[in-house]
Amino acid sequence: MHSHDTALIGLDWGTTSLRAYRIAADGAVVERRETGDGILSVPTGGFEDVFRAVVGAWAEGGLPIVASGMITSRNGWHETPYLTAPAGPADIAGGLVRYRTHGGQEIRFVPGVMTRGADGSPDVMRGEETQIVGAAGEADGTIVFVLPGTHSKWAVVSDGRITGFRTFMSGEVYAALRDHTILGRLMQPGPGSEAAFLKGCDKARSRDGRILNALFSARTLPLFGEIAETETADYLSGLVIGAEFVEALGGVPEKAPIVIASRSDLAERYLRTAASFGRPTRTAADDTAATGLWRIARAAGILT
Amino acid sequence: MHSHDTALIGLDWGTTSLRAYRIAADGAVVERRETGDGILSVPTGGFEDVFRAVVGAWAEGGLPIVASGMITSRNGWHETPYLTAPAGPADIAGGLVRYRTHGGQEIRFVPGVMTRGADGSPDVMRGEETQIVGAAGEADGTIVFVLPGTHSKWAVVSDGRITGFRTFMSGEVYAALRDHTILGRLMQPGPGSEAAFLKGCDKARSRDGRILNALFSARTLPLFGEIAETETADYLSGLVIGAEFVEALGGVPEKAPIVIASRSDLAERYLRTAASFGRPTRTAADDTAATGLWRIARAAGILT
Repeated sequence: MHSHDTALIGLDWGTTSLRAYRIAADGAVVERRETGDGILSVPTGGFEDVFRAVVGAWAEGGLPIVASGMITSRNGWHETPYLTAPAGPADIAGGLVRYRTHGGQEIRFVPGVMTRGADGSPDVMRGEETQIVGAAGEADGTIVFVLPGTHSKWAVVSDGRITGFRTFMSGEVYAALRDHTILGRLMQPGPGSEAAFLKGCDKARSRDGRILNALFSARTLPLFGEIAETETADYLSGLVIGAEFVEALGGVPEKAPIVIASRSDLAERYLRTAASFGRPTRTAADDTAATGLWRIARAAGILT
Repeated sequence: MHSHDTALIGLDWGTTSLRAYRIAADGAVVERRETGDGILSVPTGGFEDVFRAVVGAWAEGGLPIVASGMITSRNGWHETPYLTAPAGPADIAGGLVRYRTHGGQEIRFVPGVMTRGADGSPDVMRGEETQIVGAAGEADGTIVFVLPGTHSKWAVVSDGRITGFRTFMSGEVYAALRDHTILGRLMQPGPGSEAAFLKGCDKARSRDGRILNALFSARTLPLFGEIAETETADYLSGLVIGAEFVEALGGVPEKAPIVIASRSDLAERYLRTAASFGRPTRTAADDTAATGLWRIARAAGILT
């Protein structure tokens, strides 16, 4: 078999996008397709049509198909239960949920993962567990993986298994504050100000991660001309992400390396924030979702 | 002169409402009018028309008129500068800004008050200084006044002067989260749950006022059926107000009495929260704005 023959079709199907991969037996991505067909934009009952249109001929010949992300949620195509952490590739492989399409193809849906905090509150992920498994690879020891975004995830991985994680609503909180409070009124588009971003981080750190009062400084500082209106959005972003770091760093092992597992534009901001907290941090390789899907499929023994 | 003759016309003119008072020489409110003509709903150049329609014949005969609130802001009728704290009735009286209407009536606009936090960030109020002056009355010693709302104010008053204050964006943050994030999707109208509200307060306290992770529990708890969807809004409210208390109590004198200076429905929630933090708290009398306007006018020597 040629090493770049397809051994697996992987789907990373989230809220706002669908990423489809043809993956070789050694985990290499042979081909990728990305569309805006996230679950929010697909009408009820329409998932199989999208699947056929995007994956199409790839799936002929009975290749195994594994799908992760919000596609497995109540509002997705086929709901899967949550595994309880700790969870690694073998646990996730054991929890795959088989589903047969009307067209007769079998898809294996990845389960979500849940955990409970020290105070018993549940926390959940769908899709991120696959990215983390991909980013973690064969690494031993304890690593902290950070997935920035609307709902940022901070996961602790020990010897390849997710032992616990916490979700921070930073991205969504930032957008709601910017677009739906008075803070947006003194914001003007600007070229992006690293200084203002770091000033926001510093403020969050000086307030030990408590933001309800500090947020008002995103109004008073431009009101008094102490930051420019073109810098105010960056300042607010720094404030929120800085607060996330104060809170998140307080709950992860002190010496563990930190890895930002993201393709997003946010990764750069998270790296800068980590540096401002004196925590050396690196980014993961690209295509962590594809690698994760491949590692789960391999653990399940279903690679062709 | 009859004790209930009018000696002063007071206007508490804010963002969403206008409250007008006929006030006697001893501070008693003789008559009050309230309309929805907040500065947000009055077209440019329209303030004098609203003034004439609402205050009308009251203002004939040259009675002194004092006005406070957002009406003195850049988007109001006549902008006043900020006094820098400490500020009491005499300071505010000294900062009154005279304005003559086209109709020839003189209005004295109350200045806003500003202060700077330990880290130099500016903070501001317009209108609340008048309510605080009214609520403080002749009391000696140090008292903490709390004005719940869209932007809650916590002010420290010593011997009748506002020595410093902080603004917490709790009300606006709560509304933005409820209406413009995923948290609203698992909320259903309910009869109001004190237990859920206090559960939110407890969560905020256990997280030492850091909310970015705790907020996600307002999604996961109803998702797992651990609070009812009809209770989720109360839980979120408790979480945000509880976080405000953690942060605010950390910056006020430990033994000072706390007074909630508010007519709003929120006062009850703030009292409950204070009790859950073990801080005995009382509410101020009604009409604190009218009393404050009267105290400022008296300090200015302009009562008829």
